[in-house]
Amino acid sequence: MKNFNPIRGTYDYMPREAKIREIIRGKILESYQNNGYNLISTPILESLDFLDSSEGGDNLRLMFKTIKRGDRLDLTKPDLSEKDITEEGLRYDLTVPLSRFYANNRNKLPNPFKAIQMDYAFRAERPQKGRNRQFIQCDIDVFGDSSINAELELLKTTIDTYEKLGFNNLTLKINNREILNSLILSAGFEEESIKTICVTLDKLDKIQINGVMMELIEKGFDMEKINKLSEILSDVKERGVNSLINYGVSEKTVLDLNYLIDNLNKMTDGKHNIMFEVSIVRGQGYYTGTIYEFYTEGFGGAIGAGGRYDKMIEKMTGFSVPAVGASIGFEPVTMLLKEKNVMFDAKENLALIYDEDDDILEVFDIKSKLMEKFNVSLFARAKNMKNFYEKIVEVADCVTSVKDYKEGKEIKILN
Amino acid sequence: MKNFNPIRGTYDYMPREAKIREIIRGKILESYQNNGYNLISTPILESLDFLDSSEGGDNLRLMFKTIKRGDRLDLTKPDLSEKDITEEGLRYDLTVPLSRFYANNRNKLPNPFKAIQMDYAFRAERPQKGRNRQFIQCDIDVFGDSSINAELELLKTTIDTYEKLGFNNLTLKINNREILNSLILSAGFEEESIKTICVTLDKLDKIQINGVMMELIEKGFDMEKINKLSEILSDVKERGVNSLINYGVSEKTVLDLNYLIDNLNKMTDGKHNIMFEVSIVRGQGYYTGTIYEFYTEGFGGAIGAGGRYDKMIEKMTGFSVPAVGASIGFEPVTMLLKEKNVMFDAKENLALIYDEDDDILEVFDIKSKLMEKFNVSLFARAKNMKNFYEKIVEVADCVTSVKDYKEGKEIKILN
Repeated sequence: MKNFNPIRGTYDYMPREAKIREIIRGKILESYQNNGYNLISTPILESLDFLDSSEGGDNLRLMFKTIKRGDRLDLTKPDLSEKDITEEGLRYDLTVPLSRFYANNRNKLPNPFKAIQMDYAFRAERPQKGRNRQFIQCDIDVFGDSSINAELELLKTTIDTYEKLGFNNLTLKINNREILNSLILSAGFEEESIKTICVTLDKLDKIQINGVMMELIEKGFDMEKINKLSEILSDVKERGVNSLINYGVSEKTVLDLNYLIDNLNKMTDGKHNIMFEVSIVRGQGYYTGTIYEFYTEGFGGAIGAGGRYDKMIEKMTGFSVPAVGASIGFEPVTMLLKEKNVMFDAKENLALIYDEDDDILEVFDIKSKLMEKFNVSLFARAKNMKNFYEKIVEVADCVTSVKDYKEGKEIKILN
Repeated sequence: MKNFNPIRGTYDYMPREAKIREIIRGKILESYQNNGYNLISTPILESLDFLDSSEGGDNLRLMFKTIKRGDRLDLTKPDLSEKDITEEGLRYDLTVPLSRFYANNRNKLPNPFKAIQMDYAFRAERPQKGRNRQFIQCDIDVFGDSSINAELELLKTTIDTYEKLGFNNLTLKINNREILNSLILSAGFEEESIKTICVTLDKLDKIQINGVMMELIEKGFDMEKINKLSEILSDVKERGVNSLINYGVSEKTVLDLNYLIDNLNKMTDGKHNIMFEVSIVRGQGYYTGTIYEFYTEGFGGAIGAGGRYDKMIEKMTGFSVPAVGASIGFEPVTMLLKEKNVMFDAKENLALIYDEDDDILEVFDIKSKLMEKFNVSLFARAKNMKNFYEKIVEVADCVTSVKDYKEGKEIKILN
């Protein structure tokens, strides 16, 4: 027998799940729009020349690439390389296409420009729970605003949106790349070591301070500097934001951080856990300022994240513009809401049963009237109604109740 | 300077257009759901083994194919073929993935099963107006219902949906593959010639009956049979459905056709132009019964189409199930609505202007209150407000009005 599974790491969504995903997507979009961001859309395929020019790191290795078509594909060429046979790639995120979009349309776009993107991206990652090879990203980005109010509105909007989805107890951990840089330099490390050390610091949550020290020793760094960094991190952990000024962090960075945390706390009545957290690093090389991650109970990883990437657009396109973004992890959020069995308001789905000798115009007329209140699907009476009920109501979740046209009465099957 | 255009045949959508596309997508989905169809979703990438097994004709040639990754890609293999280096393809329609979905989940699905799909498909066609390489398809399909009521509900649903989008004067042309087969056989042609002759008949609209005859002569068919076919087509054109019975068309097919047209006309109060049209052929090889196309003023091609394909699932998957579908052409529909400048109800987008020395909590508080009625975006006062207005209101269409926080009054910029 043939195999009819979707390809590795991708999924078919049955009616119940497809409907939930659509509702969640709609709620996120509505909240983003209500907060004054504008939906834009770019293609799934981008030229490989462009994608390869991005600071995608590991993601570049995980790209799906398309082969050249027609005469342009020459398989007889000697010493064939991947570059010879490929043309486009499936985007691995929405930030890289957004920077191309901005460069392409900057004359027509306002400054600042606030964008929503909600669409597919692809990565050929080793499949695991909550990691799909095709996934939806829900991003908001602000281009052209270097002030901390950009972060404030982005994060308030993101919190609003999580709340609309029923997440009422978030943990938002905020850090800043400048802080990490200053702490590392304060410990005596060289500017060139910052990236490598950040890769290790990123694991602070998982392997604790001792693990971090071990890894830095393995990487061959000077023991004295490692000890100093450990001391600094402990001090920062203990004394928080106010200790930062001692380690070369600029006053502006500290003020901005306090401004962000204070105002977010006030705006949300202290409902969420919003804090400075020095162990937040974010992997991507392109971040330059504020960075943040959202967490919630029941999921180990972040359910949302983002940060400021003021240099990226310039590096990729030559046009300098400050940029900051925040992303809601659609796949983990959907998984969590599905696990919690969260119900969303949606029109009830009704099956209207008729017999083959019924007046079809009258049947459609009744359907039309019922459609004002319900989603209504016509079904000719099945030979085995019990089997029909089970499949359509319980298994596939296509309808929630069944109405018998002949009897004129509704038969509730579920709740 | 670098080129920042999207790749050939694909498009970036600015806020106005992205918003319109999203609203149209939402309206179509809502109407499909209201009519009792259930959204499902399948991945964009499918295995090439599976895609290649479909009756895709020309579309197979137009597929985007992805290369193998990692060790599986061996470019040193002698006599390298395309098959050696490719793994998945981007689906060229939603019907082929639906048949895999059905085969994979048939035990869990009700019978009949009514599916909605609204998602991307890809074809590397020569770019032209209204033909994108990445496009959205809006399909409804019924699996497991061989009765004409499946067509009736599908077409009524599709008409409902067009009406919701403001198309109040549709032309729906209906034909049946069995009718075409009978007419061709009646003229004396062989069973084996049917496909070739249908390819020519498909052009009847464009090249008229004389053009069709010329092309059949060029194809080397017998003159007598060609003349006979021409006579039959003229007679059918003149006398309509009732002439069909003389040319071997089964009584059931004629009854079903009349049933479909009569009931659709009654249900829609004769508002649309719904008719039997012998020149409708539909290119795809998989159609077996009723076929139809939707037209409207201002667009030469069809804006929607579909038909019955009772054998396709069995050929592809081994599971026999009758199937019929209808598709709304999202790209031409969107183009037409954009050209007509159709406005859809949507929350008004407001820009709220504040100054840097304003109390930010108060500003956000006002934003929150305004958000009950509007989509509200915060903007710090720009140095050049005239330029800001022009870009954000007129060019990018990001907001429709601007409210000055300091002045407390709304400044209407557009209508």
